[in-house]
Order: sequence, then C-alpha cells, then structure tokens
Amino acid sequence: MKFTVNRNRFINDLNSVLKAISSRVQIPILSGIKLDLTDDELIMTGSNTDISIELSQPASDDLKIESTGSIVVTAHLFSEIVRKLPGKEFTFDVKEGSQIQITSERADYTINALEASSYPRLPEITGTSFTLPSKTLRELISQTVFAVSTEDSRPTLTGVNFTFKNGQIKAVATDSHRLSQRIVDVESGPSEDLSLIIPGKNLQELAQIIGDADQDIRVYLGDSQIRFEFDRLSFYTRLLEGNYPDVDRLLPTESTTSVQFAVSDLSQTLSRASLLTHANRTNAVQMKLNVDDQTVLVSGNSPEVGKIEEEVGFSSLTGKNLTISFNPDYMAAALRASVTDSVIINFTESLRPFTVVPNDQSIEFVQLITPIRTF
Amino acid sequence: MKFTVNRNRFINDLNSVLKAISSRVQIPILSGIKLDLTDDELIMTGSNTDISIELSQPASDDLKIESTGSIVVTAHLFSEIVRKLPGKEFTFDVKEGSQIQITSERADYTINALEASSYPRLPEITGTSFTLPSKTLRELISQTVFAVSTEDSRPTLTGVNFTFKNGQIKAVATDSHRLSQRIVDVESGPSEDLSLIIPGKNLQELAQIIGDADQDIRVYLGDSQIRFEFDRLSFYTRLLEGNYPDVDRLLPTESTTSVQFAVSDLSQTLSRASLLTHANRTNAVQMKLNVDDQTVLVSGNSPEVGKIEEEVGFSSLTGKNLTISFNPDYMAAALRASVTDSVIINFTESLRPFTVVPNDQSIEFVQLITPIRTF
Repeated sequence: MKFTVNRNRFINDLNSVLKAISSRVQIPILSGIKLDLTDDELIMTGSNTDISIELSQPASDDLKIESTGSIVVTAHLFSEIVRKLPGKEFTFDVKEGSQIQITSERADYTINALEASSYPRLPEITGTSFTLPSKTLRELISQTVFAVSTEDSRPTLTGVNFTFKNGQIKAVATDSHRLSQRIVDVESGPSEDLSLIIPGKNLQELAQIIGDADQDIRVYLGDSQIRFEFDRLSFYTRLLEGNYPDVDRLLPTESTTSVQFAVSDLSQTLSRASLLTHANRTNAVQMKLNVDDQTVLVSGNSPEVGKIEEEVGFSSLTGKNLTISFNPDYMAAALRASVTDSVIINFTESLRPFTVVPNDQSIEFVQLITPIRTF
Repeated sequence: MKFTVNRNRFINDLNSVLKAISSRVQIPILSGIKLDLTDDELIMTGSNTDISIELSQPASDDLKIESTGSIVVTAHLFSEIVRKLPGKEFTFDVKEGSQIQITSERADYTINALEASSYPRLPEITGTSFTLPSKTLRELISQTVFAVSTEDSRPTLTGVNFTFKNGQIKAVATDSHRLSQRIVDVESGPSEDLSLIIPGKNLQELAQIIGDADQDIRVYLGDSQIRFEFDRLSFYTRLLEGNYPDVDRLLPTESTTSVQFAVSDLSQTLSRASLLTHANRTNAVQMKLNVDDQTVLVSGNSPEVGKIEEEVGFSSLTGKNLTISFNPDYMAAALRASVTDSVIINFTESLRPFTVVPNDQSIEFVQLITPIRTF
C-alpha cells in the first residue's frame, strides 16, 4: 500500500473524518482512522460507534496511487504528523509488520500502525432513499436541536423527531420543559410516510460537517442507522428506537395576551437579567405585561446577589394584563433560533405554556415554553 | 458615593484591574474590586496578595463625580454587568447598607457590595526609584521568564534575577536544566548597584499589561515589594527573598563544535521530532553533527510509537564531529526567544552544557542548555 498525496487537500479530508473520532471510546482500534486504498480511490473511515464518517478521494494528480491495501493509523498522532510535515505533498508507504513510513522532503517518519482486518465494518444501508437540500436539513437541525433533552431518563427525547408526510417534513424536539417544532415543504422527500428519531448531538456534528454547503444530500434509511451522503462524504448515525410522544396536542390554539418584540431587544434584556437569576437554584425571570399602561417590565431577583428591573420595548401588546415567570435561557435559545427579526409571544395564563412564533404567518415554526411557578 | 462614567472607557480600565483578581484566593474580600472615589479621581484596586493593580481615572467629561466614598464590588459579577449594560454610560450609586445601584438607560440593577474598610491596604513603597523604557522591560521579561523554575523546591529559581550595575541590567532565569541571560544598557537606571528577584508569573502578568506601550516606566523599590508605575496604573509585586546563584561561572568560554541555523528551520524540525519524543518518559531528540560530511541529522525515537529522522539545513558547521541529545522543548523555547533570524550553537562535549547565541555579537544574550544522557 503506497500513495503520494497533496498535503493540504488531505488535511481538509482528515479534518472531516476526525469529527467521528472520540477520545472517550472504549474500543482501542476506534482511536484510529482506517485508510483503504484501491486502484482508483483512497477511502478514510472514522467511527465512535455513535457516528461514522467515510470519505473518499479519487486518484488524480493530487493522489498518486502506487499499490493498494488497507491499514489503521492512530488518528491523533497521524493528524499531528501530517499537519507538521514540511512539504506540499507526502508519501505514505506501508512496511512490514504494520509499520508505515511517511516521508515529505527531508522528514522521514516510521510509525507503528494497526491491521485493518480488526476494524469494525460499517453497516450496509440499502433501504429507502430520498434527497434533501442541504440548506433545508441544516435549518431543520439548527431550529430544533437545542431543545432536545440532555437526560437519559427518556432516551427518545434526546433526539429530534423527523416526520415525513404529504410533501412536508416536521422536525420536533422537546426536553418536556420547552419544545421547538418546524415544518417545511420538500419536493423530493421519501415516497411513503416516515417517522424517525436521530440523536441530537449527532445532528449537531452533521450540521457542522454540512457547513455552508449548498447541495443535495442523499439520505439512505436502514433499520437502526441512517446515512447522509453528499460530495465524497458519507455520515452514518444510529437511530433512536421507540415512539416519539404526540406533541400536537400540547400546542395551545388560542391566547389571551399577545406581545411582539424585536428579537435583539428582548435577548439583550434577558441576558442582563439572567446574570442575577443564574445565581439562584430556580433560574427564573419575571415578565409583567401591563396592557393598560402599555409597559413590559422584566425583572430578575437573587436574594444573595441583588436584583435587576428593566422595561423592554415592544411593537404591540394586546389582551389581558399578565405576570409570568420563565427560564430566561429557554427564551434566549428560542430567540437565537428565530428566523425573523421580531417574534410574537402568545400567552394564556401564568402557569400555562406559551408560544413564541415568527412575525410571519407563512413560516411554520413554533416554540413552546413552560412557565415557572414562583409562589 | 456616586459617579457617571463612559462605559467603554471604564471597561478598558476594569480589564486591567481584573488581571490581579484570582478565583483561587483564600481571602473573600479579594474576590472584589475596590472603588475609591475622591473629588477628582476614581481609583480601582484589585489584588491577589501576590500582585496588586491600582488604576486611577481623573474626573472629566467621561467621569462625572457627584459624591465621594469607597466600596468593594464582586469583581466577576460587576464586570459581567458592566459589559452587558445597554447604554454608552452608566451611573454607579452607593445606597444604604452597602448596596449599589447601577443604572444605564432602562436597566436598573441593585447589587450587594462589601464595605471598603475591610479591604487590605497596599504597601507604601518609598525606597529607591528609577526609570526604564517599557520596551526594555518587556524584552528582558520575554527573553528570560520562560526559563524560570516551576518547582517550589528552590523558590529563588521561580523568579527572574535583575542585576543593575555599571549602567547595565542583567536579567537571568534558570530552572537548573537551562538558563537564559540577557544584558542591556540603560541610561536612567538606579544610581546604586541592585540585585532583585521577581516571581516569573508576576512578570508575565506585567508584560501583558505593558503590552505594546512605548513609554517610560517608573520603578519604586520597597523592602519586600516593587511597584511599576506607568500611565494611570500601578503594578505591585512581591520580591523573592534569598540570594540568586552566581551563574556566570556556568557559562562555557570556549567550544569545539559550532553550527549556525536559521531559527525557523531548526524550530520546524524540532516540532516534528518532538511529536514522537513527547510520548517518552525522557523527552530527548538526538542531533548528529557530522563536520566531515557537512550534515546535521536530527532524530526522535519512541519505542512504542515510532521514529523520525530529518536532515536539517544550516549555514555553517565547524569543529569536531559530535552526537548530542537534548530536550527539544528547551531548544524550542530558546529559539522562540531569539532576537535574530539565525542563531549559533556552541558545543563542547556530549554531556557538557552548550550555548545558543544570536548571530550578532553586539547582542548580549546567551542561552545555556544541559544535554541529556541517553546511554
């Protein structure tokens, strides 16, 4: 097994594969990256059992293949070495006894490696496949994933639930204190109805890898795994088993107090108030909506530290007077995910969940936040 | 006590004073910043007993003083609040019972504070004083401080020794494995001979605070403390007691092998070799200087990981053939401190310390490195 490759191009690919390498993995060979060299491509594979990434580079002027084979290199050391090599390209050559030689200009490394035969096989996924634009997938993830649960007591809630039906995708995440739901139309979704739950942290990795790319992503669905394919990269993640709760019935259909805020105004006020509420066991700010006086007062109070009061500006305030307390971090996350510069918050009662929706009825995006009882 | 201040200007000052605040300090009031307001200035003080920083801002359009007084505010919370305030300026007002009110536009904080009477007094330093250019002090620090010892077994070695004599300053640091010594001429130094030892980590803080400033620094010497004054800031650090070892006798006066390297070439080669040697208990690279063949070969070897060999380019190589092993991190630190693009390394024997000096005889800067016995 021997090839010579353009170093910068190789480092770019290596960076993508490294996202699947975890220092906490229990299986020693998974601290390595597998390199498979055929007559016409080099395939690099990284995996932490939760996600796997496979990336291929075709033979070209940038990748000259001399002889084929497979080997596993220690991911951390190998990537450090490749980054520090002096030349524009380097030669990778497998010697006897699973040793590899890496040469670039006058630098000559001989490094111990591992046999590829003991590296686990990635699942073959041959089920349903369909296509999604990268922009759609990236937005669905970023607009919901922050609301997944971080507790393992209800595993399905650690994932985002994607439902495909009637030419639409619905993405929902909830940790049972707040919920985020986004619905978008898709032209090229799956032909049959589908519901699947993908672990939130894996989706965050996927969103990072998609980055700003604007292209179609091919999705392949297996029994317990799903594969996203774009460019020369395949991203595998396991699926979460179980039924996702029916959240439609949680969304209130009417409201008694409505207020419209500029996202930036409310965000800044909350970030100031939460400086104090973060010191408390119960992290809650109070919002006093006075429709008669047309004022909205936000306050945060920490008996040990002090208090803050601030009037926050708004565009419109209608309905009944209301005083309500909520976790400012949940609201801040909802505002960060906003797709419009201003949002409408619809309240009913002090202890009933309220919704945050875009100031644009054509966008099907609703966030639900449960208030906090402070008395 | 009440003042209104330009927020950005205040934040700049606050950032300097915060450098003296440590989260590890045992005395609760030192987690605070003291504010002293007189009729004509605001003085902020931070201290962690090891270093103290005092900064004054005179009354001006940017600082309107309404009534005088003193108070201590929790450094971390206060700085977070000031950073997040909405307005260009804010008003700070001390209320009854050591509460402070901070207002900016519509934001209104009321925060618990501490009485200033329990804040420790900074030492009054009235001894010798003299002037140093900031550039000189900054360079003396950066060229020596990396070589101080990090072990407490010989406390004097955790500091840099500054000796003032005959219109020169000599700065020396050593951890007994390597040494760095820099001598510069000063025009306005102290009138009598002086030798003092300043803790290395305090000097690093001082160098950061000096930053790129180009101005005179006034130095005031006390019995156990020293004060550096520039601009509106005073930096206090304790001095280390004891006698600094006489290092002059350690510096070899002759050599049998000399080699001249470009700093960047040797640095890069060593950074590649140390990827492997860092895996070993003894972190050593080997350098083989072959005067007959006119080659210099650097190698690093880790039985468990692998090995690297690299020929490194040089400008000249004279004397006897020599094979020597040393800690690549010590050499890398010596090269980072270099003031010239190329250095001359003078060796005697494999187990005798060698020197790294600038390729410019007018610069009195010598670094000494002890080799490692590898057989």
